[in-house]
Amino acid sequence: MKRATAILISGRGSNMQSLVRACQDPDFPARIELVASNKADAPGLDWARDQGLPTLALTRSPGEGRADFDTRLDRALTDRGIDLVCLAGYMRLLTAGFTERWQGRLLNIHPSLLPSFPGLDAQAQAHRARVRVTGCTVHFVDSGLDSGPIIDQRALHLEPRESLESLSSRLLALEHALYPECLKQVAAQQVQLIDGRAIWR
Amino acid sequence: MKRATAILISGRGSNMQSLVRACQDPDFPARIELVASNKADAPGLDWARDQGLPTLALTRSPGEGRADFDTRLDRALTDRGIDLVCLAGYMRLLTAGFTERWQGRLLNIHPSLLPSFPGLDAQAQAHRARVRVTGCTVHFVDSGLDSGPIIDQRALHLEPRESLESLSSRLLALEHALYPECLKQVAAQQVQLIDGRAIWR
Repeated sequence: MKRATAILISGRGSNMQSLVRACQDPDFPARIELVASNKADAPGLDWARDQGLPTLALTRSPGEGRADFDTRLDRALTDRGIDLVCLAGYMRLLTAGFTERWQGRLLNIHPSLLPSFPGLDAQAQAHRARVRVTGCTVHFVDSGLDSGPIIDQRALHLEPRESLESLSSRLLALEHALYPECLKQVAAQQVQLIDGRAIWR
Repeated sequence: MKRATAILISGRGSNMQSLVRACQDPDFPARIELVASNKADAPGLDWARDQGLPTLALTRSPGEGRADFDTRLDRALTDRGIDLVCLAGYMRLLTAGFTERWQGRLLNIHPSLLPSFPGLDAQAQAHRARVRVTGCTVHFVDSGLDSGPIIDQRALHLEPRESLESLSSRLLALEHALYPECLKQVAAQQVQLIDGRAIWR
């Protein structure tokens, strides 16, 4: 049975697109049942609608706190029978209450080889640090910033004097390959979060 | 002309062995002119002697401070016309005075993808952190701990449930390939330390 999966975005959601495409394979163990955005004008929502996917714009009400917002988000997901959640450029920190409720079923992708370069603009951080190897990480989300248990990673080798634009573009291609692979493994329970660790069968 | 190179060790010096072998190539732009150890009983000294290489055991005198020791080390190197220095498991922190004098001509190898996992037992740190990609780094040495400008890096992908022993052994093979390559590029001035950055031609 396919696992009912939601993707949370805030913008273009290029990683969403690679997940959606992967899920079109009849043998893929997950199905995208919802694309939700905290920004009503996220271009990724239009793309998802064009694909015939259910979408939801869930924007913060005036004065609404993070916990209340995340409670509404949680309800929107559970009401639709969502089982797995993939963050794909979702630019809002989730509360610990939310990450605990979705523990082991909430994935994120980050454009660095964590634990190096957590936080924003990881590609630029790596480029500024003049590393020669960087990559991307898919991890279970916990309440910390890009700190959750690592599911898998892919690396690339920078060329001398490679531009940030070239690096970012090559990283994106790596992300688009890695994220569907990780969703597949999690959906098929080949990897599970147990005692705070990603455990492979 | 071959650059006169010294290797500093404290133990077995397996990276020393890979550097020595690379330098046996007539076209290699560096020659090992000295293997020095701060431990008189370092097994690597015996190996180097067997290879017919000049060796030196430079041990700390009772009460001798770090600066005085590094001054003696500096003199031992300059007296022998050494131009480049490669640390290969040299387990003693160098003083800022020494690293400044040898700036751009002093290399180290570290068994992680810096900036992740600086310090001791980097392989075990990475294994405990359950990363899926780690690697090794050759960098110019500055006065910080494993913080100098990165020359080059190589990555490997961990198998699920890979043991620390397997990881360490695969990393060592990667180190043995990377370090000679980096010494070659530095000796041939294909990469230079300029304004605190490793700049490639």
